Amino acid sequence: MIVILKQNYPEARLSTLKDWLKTLNIDIQMNKGTACTVLGLIGDTTNVDEDMLRALDFVDNVQRVSEPFKKANRKFHPEDTVVEVGGAKFGGDNKTVLIAGPCSVESEEQICGIAESVKAAGAQMLRGGAFKPRTSPYDFQGLRAEGLELLLKAKRLTGLPIVTEIMDISQLDLFADVDLIQVGARNMQNFELLKVLGRGNKPVLLKRGLANTIRELLMSAEYIMSGGNSNVILCERGIRTFETVTRNTLDLSAIPAVKELSHLPIIVDPSHATGAARFVRTMTLAATAAGAHGLIIEVHNNPSAALCDGPQSITPPQFEEIAGQVRKLEAAL
Amino acid sequence: MIVILKQNYPEARLSTLKDWLKTLNIDIQMNKGTACTVLGLIGDTTNVDEDMLRALDFVDNVQRVSEPFKKANRKFHPEDTVVEVGGAKFGGDNKTVLIAGPCSVESEEQICGIAESVKAAGAQMLRGGAFKPRTSPYDFQGLRAEGLELLLKAKRLTGLPIVTEIMDISQLDLFADVDLIQVGARNMQNFELLKVLGRGNKPVLLKRGLANTIRELLMSAEYIMSGGNSNVILCERGIRTFETVTRNTLDLSAIPAVKELSHLPIIVDPSHATGAARFVRTMTLAATAAGAHGLIIEVHNNPSAALCDGPQSITPPQFEEIAGQVRKLEAAL
Amino acid sequence: MIVILKQNYPEARLSTLKDWLKTLNIDIQMNKGTACTVLGLIGDTTNVDEDMLRALDFVDNVQRVSEPFKKANRKFHPEDTVVEVGGAKFGGDNKTVLIAGPCSVESEEQICGIAESVKAAGAQMLRGGAFKPRTSPYDFQGLRAEGLELLLKAKRLTGLPIVTEIMDISQLDLFADVDLIQVGARNMQNFELLKVLGRGNKPVLLKRGLANTIRELLMSAEYIMSGGNSNVILCERGIRTFETVTRNTLDLSAIPAVKELSHLPIIVDPSHATGAARFVRTMTLAATAAGAHGLIIEVHNNPSAALCDGPQSITPPQFEEIAGQVRKLEAAL
Amino acid sequence: MIVILKQNYPEARLSTLKDWLKTLNIDIQMNKGTACTVLGLIGDTTNVDEDMLRALDFVDNVQRVSEPFKKANRKFHPEDTVVEVGGAKFGGDNKTVLIAGPCSVESEEQICGIAESVKAAGAQMLRGGAFKPRTSPYDFQGLRAEGLELLLKAKRLTGLPIVTEIMDISQLDLFADVDLIQVGARNMQNFELLKVLGRGNKPVLLKRGLANTIRELLMSAEYIMSGGNSNVILCERGIRTFETVTRNTLDLSAIPAVKELSHLPIIVDPSHATGAARFVRTMTLAATAAGAHGLIIEVHNNPSAALCDGPQSITPPQFEEIAGQVRKLEAAL
Repeated sequence: MIVILKQNYPEARLSTLKDWLKTLNIDIQMNKGTACTVLGLIGDTTNVDEDMLRALDFVDNVQRVSEPFKKANRKFHPEDTVVEVGGAKFGGDNKTVLIAGPCSVESEEQICGIAESVKAAGAQMLRGGAFKPRTSPYDFQGLRAEGLELLLKAKRLTGLPIVTEIMDISQLDLFADVDLIQVGARNMQNFELLKVLGRGNKPVLLKRGLANTIRELLMSAEYIMSGGNSNVILCERGIRTFETVTRNTLDLSAIPAVKELSHLPIIVDPSHATGAARFVRTMTLAATAAGAHGLIIEVHNNPSAALCDGPQSITPPQFEEIAGQVRKLEAAL
Repeated sequence: MIVILKQNYPEARLSTLKDWLKTLNIDIQMNKGTACTVLGLIGDTTNVDEDMLRALDFVDNVQRVSEPFKKANRKFHPEDTVVEVGGAKFGGDNKTVLIAGPCSVESEEQICGIAESVKAAGAQMLRGGAFKPRTSPYDFQGLRAEGLELLLKAKRLTGLPIVTEIMDISQLDLFADVDLIQVGARNMQNFELLKVLGRGNKPVLLKRGLANTIRELLMSAEYIMSGGNSNVILCERGIRTFETVTRNTLDLSAIPAVKELSHLPIIVDPSHATGAARFVRTMTLAATAAGAHGLIIEVHNNPSAALCDGPQSITPPQFEEIAGQVRKLEAAL
Repeated sequence: MIVILKQNYPEARLSTLKDWLKTLNIDIQMNKGTACTVLGLIGDTTNVDEDMLRALDFVDNVQRVSEPFKKANRKFHPEDTVVEVGGAKFGGDNKTVLIAGPCSVESEEQICGIAESVKAAGAQMLRGGAFKPRTSPYDFQGLRAEGLELLLKAKRLTGLPIVTEIMDISQLDLFADVDLIQVGARNMQNFELLKVLGRGNKPVLLKRGLANTIRELLMSAEYIMSGGNSNVILCERGIRTFETVTRNTLDLSAIPAVKELSHLPIIVDPSHATGAARFVRTMTLAATAAGAHGLIIEVHNNPSAALCDGPQSITPPQFEEIAGQVRKLEAAL
Repeated sequence: MIVILKQNYPEARLSTLKDWLKTLNIDIQMNKGTACTVLGLIGDTTNVDEDMLRALDFVDNVQRVSEPFKKANRKFHPEDTVVEVGGAKFGGDNKTVLIAGPCSVESEEQICGIAESVKAAGAQMLRGGAFKPRTSPYDFQGLRAEGLELLLKAKRLTGLPIVTEIMDISQLDLFADVDLIQVGARNMQNFELLKVLGRGNKPVLLKRGLANTIRELLMSAEYIMSGGNSNVILCERGIRTFETVTRNTLDLSAIPAVKELSHLPIIVDPSHATGAARFVRTMTLAATAAGAHGLIIEVHNNPSAALCDGPQSITPPQFEEIAGQVRKLEAAL
């Protein structure tokens, strides 16, 4: 960490600062220039609060040389982390895991039917929303506890592990048999929820917030990991931009960027990112070529009747075709 | 609500749709054109799920003519709502309410000292963070329950009503004596939290999310209000843009825009928006000229030593000067 | 086009509006509702100025049902346009065209050396900047006219057609032997320049602006095409977002989106988008999988010594490897 | 400027770099740490190309301590610059200059009528567009040369100095009698145009680009000033954000930010920023309270009939009322 001091800093207060940093086992190297004086902080600066330093009135600026995340940082864990979820392996050199299912669980018939279809078409995991974050309180909020039960029925029927979204700490008990707990984009910085999930060891699928950076995503992963749970899978699901043809903008460069900065697996959600079924095939192939460790795709047996997010769902036959192309592409690269 | 159909829509399915809309007491007016056919939906369309209509494969687009929020909508409540918080009145023709205090509660001495200073300088409410949302798990997380107790001491000492942030439903019991519960920018779409707050009648200060629109802010207010609690105060606190001189970009046009769309009071937080103490005075005056119903300003008796967000805090004498200018400006307009 | 009227519109003025629209050969279908009255405008509304209608005080809103671009619109030209540039074919079912070369032309030795290297490695066109748009007036501005001459030498030497950027109308005469004239991101809405290029028939490479939407890109293409020049190739080169790991965010969903809305070819610039040589390979493959008609890649024989944009340049051997993978991937799909 | 080196930098190449920097009269102070080595560059680093340094493969990062603009920099010109335009004084302690007029010049009767109205209402300058940048080639492009002549007639009639937009270098001759040449938001980084304007001494009104930062705006001012023309007035006119109630988001914190970084005057355009006449009054007052050196406001004697941008125009009586409030507010502060 580099601390740039203002021109006329008070020697006495600087010396207090240095003493305090030494108590944190930080070595200090000082570089006095004509224009400015620079402190180089050497050691583990993870616990040094950047804002606190910046708050000092004789400090001009603070710049981290190393990233503020530690457990999620590839520098300290050069090997890829592989997260296993009921047989499916995310990360490392494992093949792209395909997760498929409807936006919302609507009925036993619906979720079981889709589960069987996507399994036959090559999916290794089932997705489906029980608790639904909706912008309007008047829109369908999901079947909630009942939806979770139906998902578990589909799991027992097909053997597919399931992933579904948690919206609040108070719902955690209901997730005992869920294989992968999803934290949605709107909750990426719900730090209290992240802390609680960090105390368990259940795998967590952490979605990137709509206007969050990759480093912020990794800091949120660090919240979970600092509690002891290192079973974290990241998910790129589109960010908010000025573009309107697609609902959000899928940031595929997040895949190589995350792989460079972190050892955690990263998957892609082309359905929410584009908001349009007709773009899902293309963006799935692009994500695969970009090296995604998995794909989470919305599939509905009757998209036009889906209670929510219908426009972004593809049908089981379309999913089967796409899955085939993903495998062909993986073989070629 | 206007529904634009595709050119060759199936008559039978359209007729099913019309029947369903009629069960919601919606009248339909149909306009058949050469290029497209348009349905006009007349009646209370609040409960019509826009996404569901858009999901239908014979629908080209859906456009709301009226806003999807109802209880927060000025159209249905032409009169300004005035929210009273321990004597302070937000909204309507009442004078701008001044809220001041430190970013974080640090000690009894600190919070009580600041409370007395800002009261003397003209503040009508005290702010102070006990639960702190921090990007890094290694940064100071606030004094939490202990911080709340210290805030309540400062309240008893000075008589100032207090506002402080809640981060999770599980903390609600601790907020019994808090006068105004703040929902932070990162939780603006924590819908489960909003629902719980909507069931009580404690005033809520709802901050706009970093990348959220004014309409989304009003939809979140609607979550609280649809539960029965109409004591909602909105807060503009800067949005994320590409600008880097200021931490966020304070969107002051949100003030007239909110006043047009809604009857709820709106206040401004110039400290978090700019992230710089030296810009607070100017933006406070601009917000007052723009018609803000209140201002929430960070004040610290020793900004350089503050545990967090120090760079954006002003001192009690600076606050006193600014408060004087606010009153002068109000008198002039 | 749909015009939504306010509740109490003046009959006389509406009738004047209708008469005026009829002079433009627009048919009007009127739909009177309880909440609002809607006019459906039928016919070629390209010449109807949306802003002018919106300006009328009895008009509430205006929504286009069809896109405001015509010559660039796939609806009116269902077949893919193929733009030929000195043997290279962009668009339709043609293979991805590979364009390679340095950011800036620096010397005869440099540009000729790179031209020979990239030709041997599979490139079909040579890129290189002579006029350079730089944020600072103190940064290297390109070799300008001299740089163009060196590029033409490299063209004569290798037979590769060349693409280079024009920054102002006054430079046009110098571009007589340039095969493809590039309009940079910062000039995407330099409408006077677009008009002049539209009067010729030289192929134009139109780059998407840093904060522009796909529809705005197509409207800029329309400026060129409405002048008579339909040899337009579009280029996605990253948009400005909050992300900082990459310089910009490459929006690969722009590829299927452009293909749906327009018949024009679209290529991708992974070098400027990511700003990092180490991400170029991955994003090139992703762009190929997404269906890009071409790729424009920065290659330098000595990236560390390049006068500008060095960090985003790869070496000729790296380019050769990537070109091989592109061909393998194309074969697989 | 601080250059952070990678851990194993090559001594020989570093020494070449140092020699080169010395030829630019830069002193180097080296700070060898365990984690990294930092070079402090002391002297005038304006001519040091940041990108070139970053391109070196043994350099990890480069950070400027001082801003890269020099002539626009307050550090080197502590006194406010006052730009005089036909009697109106922008900057320093001068009162807020009020510029008013229509979006587009439409006819002699229109522009002369409005000019007389706004002069009577307190405007010190007349605005009006002759060359209009429009997103669509099919929309009204302005009266162009004829429009300029009509503006000059209004100037002769009323004595008001005029400001109007240039779109291309080739139009410059027509601007001989224009008092203040406007460079629009879309041309803020049209560097060739800026260079040409920098060679004259005619005052330039430089508008901030839709997605540009304040530092980028100042770098564009530097382009003009480095050519010798220091008569530059900056203009905040709203930036692109996700908000849709207003057309753009007016960034009023740009006013104190520009005043801190630069000595140049800064004015505000509330009409284009909000895109709505009903918000103009409020945002004009807020801009005044924030310390704007001037305001450029759209006024039309018949907004509903205006050929473009009608929704954002106010009437002469509304302008008169606002002008009165601006003066009252100035007196109070």
